[in-house]
Amino acid sequence: MLLIADNLTITNRSVKQALDDMAPEPIRELVRECEAAGAGAIDINPGPLGRDAGSRMAFLVETVQAETSLPLVIDTAEPRAMEAGLRACRNRAVINGFSLEPAKRDAMLALAAECDAEVICYLLRPDSQVPAGVDERLQVACDVFAAARAAGIEQERLIIDPIIVPVSWQDGASRNRELLSVIRQLPDVLGLPVRTIAGLSNLTAGAGPQEQKLLLERASLCMLAGAGLSMVLMNILHQETVRTARACSALTQPGVFVWEEL
Amino acid sequence: MLLIADNLTITNRSVKQALDDMAPEPIRELVRECEAAGAGAIDINPGPLGRDAGSRMAFLVETVQAETSLPLVIDTAEPRAMEAGLRACRNRAVINGFSLEPAKRDAMLALAAECDAEVICYLLRPDSQVPAGVDERLQVACDVFAAARAAGIEQERLIIDPIIVPVSWQDGASRNRELLSVIRQLPDVLGLPVRTIAGLSNLTAGAGPQEQKLLLERASLCMLAGAGLSMVLMNILHQETVRTARACSALTQPGVFVWEEL
Repeated sequence: MLLIADNLTITNRSVKQALDDMAPEPIRELVRECEAAGAGAIDINPGPLGRDAGSRMAFLVETVQAETSLPLVIDTAEPRAMEAGLRACRNRAVINGFSLEPAKRDAMLALAAECDAEVICYLLRPDSQVPAGVDERLQVACDVFAAARAAGIEQERLIIDPIIVPVSWQDGASRNRELLSVIRQLPDVLGLPVRTIAGLSNLTAGAGPQEQKLLLERASLCMLAGAGLSMVLMNILHQETVRTARACSALTQPGVFVWEEL
Repeated sequence: MLLIADNLTITNRSVKQALDDMAPEPIRELVRECEAAGAGAIDINPGPLGRDAGSRMAFLVETVQAETSLPLVIDTAEPRAMEAGLRACRNRAVINGFSLEPAKRDAMLALAAECDAEVICYLLRPDSQVPAGVDERLQVACDVFAAARAAGIEQERLIIDPIIVPVSWQDGASRNRELLSVIRQLPDVLGLPVRTIAGLSNLTAGAGPQEQKLLLERASLCMLAGAGLSMVLMNILHQETVRTARACSALTQPGVFVWEEL
């Protein structure tokens, strides 16, 4: 399982300050910490960027890749910022993300095709609502794959995000259980191996005690890994979650088990 | 998910000593600890019992149920000891367990029928080897259900143990991954809701660092819970594993989520 750090986000106060100041060093330090903690890729989520969207996203990407050669995930809903981020990337980047929402789908797919990027595809309805049930989620996955194909993007570049919902939602637990079926069934439904990703912190969004939130996130991560999840977007500085992810990999990857890899 | 304490076992030195001395108090103290730690049932595993098998098992059962009203799981491969244990139980007990091994199957099924017990059924070949692959495991489950039906035991009394193997086996991880499919598919294959159980400590049997063993057991437990596991046999004094099991229940049970239940 690939661990993608979601730490470089505007909701992290030090990141916000560094972005306000256009100061590279706090960003670089955070990237060093993330890599040392076990990140296999870095998600860059600068939040709403305002007028200078392009230059600020480019600043972030350049700052991060001055410090690391890890793959980068460009996390913005704004096509201008996405374009600037992708153009600043030295290596193949990941678009986070694409959905069927009409206002954004064409712009994101065009960027993916033009910049040869990988694309995280959200399983959301065109109106951005979470689908109801396993079958609708699988139908959305088919629609997403069809839209990408029509835009000339190879299926191998797509990564499906079935969208974890907060467990505090009235039917949050049962909706998230459906994700396990979706992840398992996607390869059969789409007829090819499919990479999947989940944003772990969505599970415990909102109020709640921190220790219990992390406990719940770890349990959910294992369930998702058992269903075949390929990647997780997570706070990589949560050491116990990283250890848990390693244990999941030991339990799911082929090959001989060795204690030292835990 | 029902948590069954496996602490009352002969491999626990204080239990062995108490059994040698026929001393009830250490047993009762352990039972109190298990109940306080969150056990929903107590497994009684006295190991090989020798000549006095019946009276020693009866002593254990009587001692335990003098302390608790939790359901009891009688864990022995010896039919004489099983019979004595079942007869000593005030309430409906669970036989642990039954397999297709010819030397024992008829005796255990006869006891189950006579004592109106529930029965844990191991998915093992008649020669006691672990089946190869998901399909063979499901076939064994069908055979087990057929044998129980022929002995007049209602299907609702059966609990399937798909048998966790040590992860240190050459193909341990992949064999255990198969269990997830087996647990998910059993209700469809057998045509009814099926309760399942797993013996968690099997996963890390043999040499290995304790902290990593527990990490791996917790990850495995979550994967099994995500697949639908109903019960787990575990060291109930491993607090972090108990917390993890509670998190799994919060993620899998219907109803509204409340942080306080974690």
